[in-house]
Amino acid sequence: MNTLSKKNDLIDEFDIIAKFFTPLAKDAPGTFGLLEDAAILPTIDSHQEWVVTVESIVCNVHFLPNDPFELIARKALRVTLSDLAAMGAKPYGYTLTIALNRDLSDSCYLLEKVSHGLTIDQAEFGIHLIGGDSVSTDGPITLAITAFGITNKAKALRRSAAMPGQDLWISGTIGDGALGLQVAKGILSKQYSDLAGRYRLPQPRISLGCRLSEIAAAAIDVSDGLILDASHIANQSKCRLVIDGGALPISESVSRIIADHSEMFELILTGGDDYELLFTAEPEAIQKIKQAGYELDIPITRIGRVDSGEGVDVLDHNGIKLNLLIEPGWTHF
Amino acid sequence: MNTLSKKNDLIDEFDIIAKFFTPLAKDAPGTFGLLEDAAILPTIDSHQEWVVTVESIVCNVHFLPNDPFELIARKALRVTLSDLAAMGAKPYGYTLTIALNRDLSDSCYLLEKVSHGLTIDQAEFGIHLIGGDSVSTDGPITLAITAFGITNKAKALRRSAAMPGQDLWISGTIGDGALGLQVAKGILSKQYSDLAGRYRLPQPRISLGCRLSEIAAAAIDVSDGLILDASHIANQSKCRLVIDGGALPISESVSRIIADHSEMFELILTGGDDYELLFTAEPEAIQKIKQAGYELDIPITRIGRVDSGEGVDVLDHNGIKLNLLIEPGWTHF
Repeated sequence: MNTLSKKNDLIDEFDIIAKFFTPLAKDAPGTFGLLEDAAILPTIDSHQEWVVTVESIVCNVHFLPNDPFELIARKALRVTLSDLAAMGAKPYGYTLTIALNRDLSDSCYLLEKVSHGLTIDQAEFGIHLIGGDSVSTDGPITLAITAFGITNKAKALRRSAAMPGQDLWISGTIGDGALGLQVAKGILSKQYSDLAGRYRLPQPRISLGCRLSEIAAAAIDVSDGLILDASHIANQSKCRLVIDGGALPISESVSRIIADHSEMFELILTGGDDYELLFTAEPEAIQKIKQAGYELDIPITRIGRVDSGEGVDVLDHNGIKLNLLIEPGWTHF
Repeated sequence: MNTLSKKNDLIDEFDIIAKFFTPLAKDAPGTFGLLEDAAILPTIDSHQEWVVTVESIVCNVHFLPNDPFELIARKALRVTLSDLAAMGAKPYGYTLTIALNRDLSDSCYLLEKVSHGLTIDQAEFGIHLIGGDSVSTDGPITLAITAFGITNKAKALRRSAAMPGQDLWISGTIGDGALGLQVAKGILSKQYSDLAGRYRLPQPRISLGCRLSEIAAAAIDVSDGLILDASHIANQSKCRLVIDGGALPISESVSRIIADHSEMFELILTGGDDYELLFTAEPEAIQKIKQAGYELDIPITRIGRVDSGEGVDVLDHNGIKLNLLIEPGWTHF
């Protein structure tokens, strides 16, 4: 496409593709070295289907300007893979759009770091780049990723499948991402750098998501905050979710922080960025869930139940509904 | 995902989706009202395959700040559909990422226009929105689109399939987009507003692309400039393309402009933004090509040939190679 402004002759778009992105697509059939107008997805079995999801992240909004570029790229990819995990899909590949600031002094350095980060995560998750576009902008660096996964037909997990009587479960621990952001911003002590690491590099629960597609009813990943994400299940399933505040699984670091800063407790409920799977299942699924957690070495905790009604309630250890003073989670505008 | 900056409470991300984007997905199975973490692509016949392509456009780079938002959105969609056309794929749907400036005084107005523009083009091209993400940025408005099309298996057109002895063809007229940009910028007279219209709202050659998948060898859409795009076919096919400069199809408006401003002739060869299909075919395909052009009411012109060698040469009416003084086309950096 044509342009309205002068180009920077130092870097050529095709050199960028060849140097930094073609290597990421080399093992993906149908991508033709990223030299065609489009890529071809492989044929899947007739009992499978493609799942597609989109995420974008913007410098200053979703990451700090000093965050290492490798980690920014890996986080962008991982939050997208987390959406696939929440649908119970096995990831196959992704397209990447990168908008680079035209005044950036060393685009090549940045792109090398992005490409390196993506190379690491492609190996970790067994996926490939299948297409992309790079453009210049006078704004902040922005990455947009569309990820492709595969599920068995009609087995994708949905937010709308919760039913009264089901149990509510969560994987891993929550609050680490939200408090990790406080560490990354310097508000909390660097002694909790493990939490900042988790904020910067979430772990999408892909294997668990695939297992849950045969076990769970409704599912979502906790990206915007436990309560807000729970409310999506509640709203779309037309149910009430009741969370036992005392049952929430928290890490030792978060536990220590809360002991010193009780005002941060609500961040556990509302902060987001954990990328754990919140899901509902029939009570008789308990053995399969525990077995999956054991085999995958992921703690899975029952934190409540699905009831008739609407909304999300959090109960304290006396069974009394908590009055939360702050907003339930993050929305982008 | 969590954020690092204060949100604008006036608009809620979920309200945005419900109001402006869910209606665009209402007829697409597997999109669940855009309320899930991901969408499911429909199952296609076993003799078909999915084709995927990505484009992004940035305010101030790919469009002028005063361009109407409906047209910006439609252009973003159409340039992506043009990539599908160049592969010979029939478009099915697309995902959209929109980054909105946080200081925008009326995001709802903009989104309404974007949604309206996309509604028009969805109807025109028989496609659906299947997923998306909206984020805030402190930079310019940016749209990223991933489009999905379907081809018959192993029938996708490639840039690498040109062979010596084939003819080189182009659809429609060229130069309108490049000179249209000069009109839009006020450099050329408003009497040529038809060209500006073509710059702002290109016409992807979808029906022709589908027909060509059974007729043509190599193909590409002319987005970055005739010579640069021709060089992609030449490079990837390891051939030389010879273009007869006197045979280039130009519109009456472009013809008149060139008569007055001969210095603009080279923009026809290098300007881009035409979104016509440049393709090669065996000489015996001529009747099928003419028949396709007749049935689709699209002029298709033989503008040269494929030869052994490398690169792209443009010959004048005496068969003498032109020495082009300016660069062959647009690259983004």
